[in-house]
Amino acid sequence: MKMIIVGASGTMGSFLSKAFEKEHEIVRGDRHGMDVQVDITSPESIENMYKTTGAFDALICTAGPTFVGPWKNLTDKEFRQGVEGKMMGQINLVLIGQRYIKPKGSFTLITGALTDEPQRNFANASAANGAVEGFVRAAAIELENGIRINAVSPTVIENSPQYFPFFPGEIPTTMRQLEYGFRKSVFGAGTGQVIKTH
Amino acid sequence: MKMIIVGASGTMGSFLSKAFEKEHEIVRGDRHGMDVQVDITSPESIENMYKTTGAFDALICTAGPTFVGPWKNLTDKEFRQGVEGKMMGQINLVLIGQRYIKPKGSFTLITGALTDEPQRNFANASAANGAVEGFVRAAAIELENGIRINAVSPTVIENSPQYFPFFPGEIPTTMRQLEYGFRKSVFGAGTGQVIKTH
Ligand SMILES: NC(=O)c1ccc[n+]([C@@H]2O[C@H](COP(=O)([O-])OP(=O)(O)OC[C@H]3O[C@@H](n4cnc5c(N)ncnc54)[C@H](OP(=O)(O)O)[C@@H]3O)[C@@H](O)[C@H]2O)c1
Ligand SMILES: NC(=O)c1ccc[n+]([C@@H]2O[C@H](COP(=O)([O-])OP(=O)(O)OC[C@H]3O[C@@H](n4cnc5c(N)ncnc54)[C@H](OP(=O)(O)O)[C@@H]3O)[C@@H](O)[C@H]2O)c1
Repeated sequence: MKMIIVGASGTMGSFLSKAFEKEHEIVRGDRHGMDVQVDITSPESIENMYKTTGAFDALICTAGPTFVGPWKNLTDKEFRQGVEGKMMGQINLVLIGQRYIKPKGSFTLITGALTDEPQRNFANASAANGAVEGFVRAAAIELENGIRINAVSPTVIENSPQYFPFFPGEIPTTMRQLEYGFRKSVFGAGTGQVIKTH
Repeated sequence: MKMIIVGASGTMGSFLSKAFEKEHEIVRGDRHGMDVQVDITSPESIENMYKTTGAFDALICTAGPTFVGPWKNLTDKEFRQGVEGKMMGQINLVLIGQRYIKPKGSFTLITGALTDEPQRNFANASAANGAVEGFVRAAAIELENGIRINAVSPTVIENSPQYFPFFPGEIPTTMRQLEYGFRKSVFGAGTGQVIKTH
């Protein structure tokens, strides 16, 4: 299976790349250009990425920048980080990618527990997650040729201890649970699902 | 109670204005200027509205433009209608309005059943709704001075028969159910809730 992983240099993306590379052809993407260069905040950059990769079986995205910071600093300007990044970045990966993906291929996007379980400082991520999850359910009834789409929604992950203080009492998602969430999306038959790994 | 209703000239807004005007001071807003002129796609316009209205007890928004149309015509460009309108328009009404609202005041935003129950042609609304609902839950733990925030989520409403063909088998929300959803948000004690009227 030819699998594009956008955000492959990140905490989640590097783990998933390693987990899947034994059995699959992985095309690693990020802004700095691993196998392929892409900035998901730009539709042109996304289009160029797909032109470079050509047809593929699965797109995994673990790139989803958002504004993290005090509510009192949150204005329209800061909010745009999540709108352009985690929300429209991922939505455009699908709207554009549907013209490049193979029949029966799959899109797997990243959201997170913050959709339903907010924490202080993360309102931008809660909104972006909610948008992506609403989009995933809607896209599932629109995509053709057996193409599937899901979101994976972990809580704070074990390899991101820097975030633990922001998630008091939250039992971290293990990297293995995270991997299995993505496995379920890519290799399962489900579509329009928000796969909770916690 | 001094209540601002943004979208007051619309199907929902005009009904709610009539329902609440017997007992409350209603300030009606829309782009064409009823009591007050506002375009929610512009933070400056929102700021000007609040400067005009001054302090208030409740903000109700039933303005939420989105792109409705075939999936095959949906690109980043069309998607921005819901991003700037129903999503950021409503989010900015809160981010800006929190500096004008009275202690123990409330914000009530509009979403809809499409968040969880998609229909063809409405992916933009599903995403915008999901964003607003995620935001509402997050804002509820951030807002100070006892200020509350909720969303009202109806399915297609009885006074919008033009939408019935898009919602096969959906039993419409009555105008009375809709009104009671808003009553629950404005006059109840709940916060961070998505109030389903269906
Ligand atoms: N970490 C957690 O505990 C956790 C839990 C739940 C949900 N999440 C969500 O999961 C996602 C990934 O988390 P993570 O911890 O793996 O993040 P991370 O370590 O910061 O990695 C982010 C990855 O995305 C890439 N990236 C950033 N902006 C990009 C852009 N505009 N275009 C293309 N690539 C971009 C980065 O590479 P470049 O900078 O080179 O582009 C990097 O490869 C985030 O959306 C986060 O909200 C995280
Ligand atoms: N109708 C339904 O069956 C139904 C069901 C579930 C959810 N919803 C949602 O509920 C919301 C309202 O529905 P509705 O049927 O009452 O809509 P509507 O009849 O079209 O009314 C929309 C109202 O919003 C105002 N408006 C539009 N764009 C605006 C902007 N940029 N800034 C300020 N005001 C603006 C309009 O006045 P101006 O044009 O003069 O500005 C009008 O007063 C929508 O978000 C819709 O998605 C509707």
